[in-house]
Amino acid sequence: QSGNDVLNLLTRKGTITKEEADSLRKVYTDEQRRNDNRLDSFPLRLARNLDLSGYTQVNYLNFQQSGKINGFQIKRARLDFQGHFSSKFDYRLLIDFVGNSGANGSAPTGGALVSPLLLDAYITYKPFTWLNVKAGQQLVQFSLENLTADRNLELVERSQVVNALVARKGDSGNGLVDSIGNQNGRDLGVQVNGSLFPIGDRHFVDYYIQILNGAGIDVSDNNNAKDVDARLVFHPIKALSIGGSYYNGYDRFTSSTTKDQGRIRWGADADLELDRWNLKGEWLRGQEGYKNVTLHDGYYAQAGYFLIKHTLQAVARYDVYDANVDKANLTTTYYDFGLNYFFNVWTKFQLYYSARAEQNAHVANNLFEAQFQLAF
Amino acid sequence: QSGNDVLNLLTRKGTITKEEADSLRKVYTDEQRRNDNRLDSFPLRLARNLDLSGYTQVNYLNFQQSGKINGFQIKRARLDFQGHFSSKFDYRLLIDFVGNSGANGSAPTGGALVSPLLLDAYITYKPFTWLNVKAGQQLVQFSLENLTADRNLELVERSQVVNALVARKGDSGNGLVDSIGNQNGRDLGVQVNGSLFPIGDRHFVDYYIQILNGAGIDVSDNNNAKDVDARLVFHPIKALSIGGSYYNGYDRFTSSTTKDQGRIRWGADADLELDRWNLKGEWLRGQEGYKNVTLHDGYYAQAGYFLIKHTLQAVARYDVYDANVDKANLTTTYYDFGLNYFFNVWTKFQLYYSARAEQNAHVANNLFEAQFQLAF
Amino acid sequence: QSGNDVLNLLTRKGTITKEEADSLRKVYTDEQRRNDNRLDSFPLRLARNLDLSGYTQVNYLNFQQSGKINGFQIKRARLDFQGHFSSKFDYRLLIDFVGNSGANGSAPTGGALVSPLLLDAYITYKPFTWLNVKAGQQLVQFSLENLTADRNLELVERSQVVNALVARKGDSGNGLVDSIGNQNGRDLGVQVNGSLFPIGDRHFVDYYIQILNGAGIDVSDNNNAKDVDARLVFHPIKALSIGGSYYNGYDRFTSSTTKDQGRIRWGADADLELDRWNLKGEWLRGQEGYKNVTLHDGYYAQAGYFLIKHTLQAVARYDVYDANVDKANLTTTYYDFGLNYFFNVWTKFQLYYSARAEQNAHVANNLFEAQFQLAF
Repeated sequence: QSGNDVLNLLTRKGTITKEEADSLRKVYTDEQRRNDNRLDSFPLRLARNLDLSGYTQVNYLNFQQSGKINGFQIKRARLDFQGHFSSKFDYRLLIDFVGNSGANGSAPTGGALVSPLLLDAYITYKPFTWLNVKAGQQLVQFSLENLTADRNLELVERSQVVNALVARKGDSGNGLVDSIGNQNGRDLGVQVNGSLFPIGDRHFVDYYIQILNGAGIDVSDNNNAKDVDARLVFHPIKALSIGGSYYNGYDRFTSSTTKDQGRIRWGADADLELDRWNLKGEWLRGQEGYKNVTLHDGYYAQAGYFLIKHTLQAVARYDVYDANVDKANLTTTYYDFGLNYFFNVWTKFQLYYSARAEQNAHVANNLFEAQFQLAF
Repeated sequence: QSGNDVLNLLTRKGTITKEEADSLRKVYTDEQRRNDNRLDSFPLRLARNLDLSGYTQVNYLNFQQSGKINGFQIKRARLDFQGHFSSKFDYRLLIDFVGNSGANGSAPTGGALVSPLLLDAYITYKPFTWLNVKAGQQLVQFSLENLTADRNLELVERSQVVNALVARKGDSGNGLVDSIGNQNGRDLGVQVNGSLFPIGDRHFVDYYIQILNGAGIDVSDNNNAKDVDARLVFHPIKALSIGGSYYNGYDRFTSSTTKDQGRIRWGADADLELDRWNLKGEWLRGQEGYKNVTLHDGYYAQAGYFLIKHTLQAVARYDVYDANVDKANLTTTYYDFGLNYFFNVWTKFQLYYSARAEQNAHVANNLFEAQFQLAF
Repeated sequence: QSGNDVLNLLTRKGTITKEEADSLRKVYTDEQRRNDNRLDSFPLRLARNLDLSGYTQVNYLNFQQSGKINGFQIKRARLDFQGHFSSKFDYRLLIDFVGNSGANGSAPTGGALVSPLLLDAYITYKPFTWLNVKAGQQLVQFSLENLTADRNLELVERSQVVNALVARKGDSGNGLVDSIGNQNGRDLGVQVNGSLFPIGDRHFVDYYIQILNGAGIDVSDNNNAKDVDARLVFHPIKALSIGGSYYNGYDRFTSSTTKDQGRIRWGADADLELDRWNLKGEWLRGQEGYKNVTLHDGYYAQAGYFLIKHTLQAVARYDVYDANVDKANLTTTYYDFGLNYFFNVWTKFQLYYSARAEQNAHVANNLFEAQFQLAF
């Protein structure tokens, strides 16, 4: 390297002594070996145009329920390629190397832990703040929690109602299967969105409109009908977001793969993010079919508090779901508790305990989970 | 560069002579040229040794044919790792996160849109311009269009005859299945190739010889016979390429998995690349079996013209395929039209309309496609 | 950075003024931020935090045995993401894009050559040299050869006994299937390890303790029992390692998926690495079940010698395996020979010939393999 050559030359010239050159050289080499390559920040940028990030979650699950098997698992192992190619074009490819979470999956999160899975594959064109277009496989813009990245979840498991109603699948033991199966909260289609009414450094409202296949991810559509999804999020003050979502689809359900049925969703949510506290909650309702409909709904309220700032966080959630509002005694209530220890910005260790109460026949199905996550 | 500036400064100060500075500068520049990566250009270079690139294609398909489902799809989502480890060794790993396009695939492009798929995995040793060796999973050196990368296709769909005869699979509705199924035009084996007779900055002829399993990609061979493939491409003037290909194999067909049959292909093609125009065409013939053979052939002629340079391109193709030359009225003719808008070097939006005529019983199977591609 | 230090030094020496140094420093820093990234060596570093490496192995196999098919294959095509995020945290994600090597695989290495496979996904926390914790999917710390990376194998194929007894699967023709199937020598769980008693620049002993699911990779556990694995490696002199391993599990076998059985393994190994020579050997024994047990054992002794340093290596192995020590005449002996040519540090070409003798009924199953590997 030329740095080295400069030192040699300066030594030969007598400008610096050999000892000085050697000590510089050592610092240089050590530094170089460690730093060499973009110095900056997380998530690491692999190139001008592409950010590569990823994370792995290792879990230990302990079930109260007999018949369920305690053990280790890789819950998620993801690589995330995000490109910001200019001020106007974004790109994303998100792959999970664990768990092809199809409708018939058998793992606790709903999929067989088998094969890599394409989660996100989309292109964004964003000519204006108030008008972006996103095409491809992407998150369904419905529900606050559905739009929270898995790596940022404060509790290791999502709430019952979001698992049940937003193309996700939770505790299969309780039959909380969304009507199109576990699609990781995602679908294929086109989104138009934007932010309106700037106030200081924020916008008063974000809007999202999506036209989606309605058949889930990594498949072609199975009928000609397209689904429509809309979401509005208001920011009356900076720390507070209030959202409302509506979804209207005509889809083929996993429970009946030969006919199409109505699939309608409503949702309302709020999120308050303070210094040590965060408070959030949402209510969702789903309707399957147009006549002889099945209605199910649920809600949760969740509070998180940093006992030690940036380091130790306690979380509690009150989580209620009614699988069929027209039948009695189907409500399930989860009392969920979490404790999160952040080693540093990229590593956290999470404990989760869920005390689970069924309205009708009680099942001994409490769950304890320990999760270790490293994200880069 | 600051190294350079230090040298200039030291020279001005008289600490080192101009000659010493110059010789250091040369070392520095050479170093830099090798190290310098990813400031420059597309595709982005992640490191001295490895180029990571990729692209995603999002499609909307609209079929005239009843029973076919209109909708969005991710057509391809690829990551491409190409290494140039020295002047003598190359490396490539190309993965598609969409569509394990096996012979029995159900998606429009021939595969179920399910699981990641290894497309290319090869190592190249290139001691001389006239002698390279490439070992691994790679493109079959047959046909001009088969050797055109998917991301560079001027029309969103390949021609009928290439889909039918070069280990690809096109419109399954028409039964255009290659005898070894959809292998993305690739196979496993060893290639020897090179360029001969340099004229100015080009070579007059490129040759390619391949020994291939003949069973397609991502599988072990299913018989002991190996296939032979040869291709010659002449460049009489710089803008013109004229190619001829021959393939001779003894393979197990997807239509009859218990016996081996002859599989022979001939091809001729030409490509003229002018400033705004490009004109290309090819003719291919295939023979299945050694006696009671099935012969099929086809050709296409295609013209592209940039209405606005580098930005808006119109394309038309006349595309004919006869699934069995010994039977009457099997010819299918596609009148294909395309309009490509290039937002910039890495993003394009393509419209495709295919008016499809069957010689015998006409099927209402015209196809419209819109495709958005971002490649980095 | 030394550039900075040079500037400081020159300033202190009065060779340049502080202003000149400052302006140079700014240019330097800006440049550096953009250019800085691995000038150095293999494996290439993509970023401060992440090393991306990988390799591809292309093989030609020639079987003596009739019914086995000679041909080309991609044996492995791997990408390896290793992060060293601080002195205390490591991360690894290793993916093979060839071969989902499940228990029922059909390819020579034990898996169907079909779909990408997650091999390693673990997080390491290493507060002390004598205490590291590794959580996730990882190698089973059992046997010297099992812990040798595939890319570093001196012979193209692993020994019979390691294939048979360490969650790997070798020559399926001989029925050498581990009782939990081919898991690439890996499992899911937690490891505690460390190095004790420093002597000069080495430690006298390394210890490893693992608690594992015992069900293999990319699946949830199939019973509540966890397996225990322990390994000690002694380094009496720097060139010599002497290891002992013990594994005790209660697992569901692929041969009988409805009941759990004991699965116990013992092993001893030694490895001497000299300048041109390396000598290694190991002995392993396995017990299946607790009563009416099946005992199998085997050993190998292997010698490698560099005929030309760093370039041409000859290897021989004497490899014996007895599939059931309580039955007569089941011993199989392989006389394995290898010749490895290293083009450079990242590319090698390997020839392998295995003369195979069965104690009872001789089978004509000798094997010749040629393998080309490029690793970066």
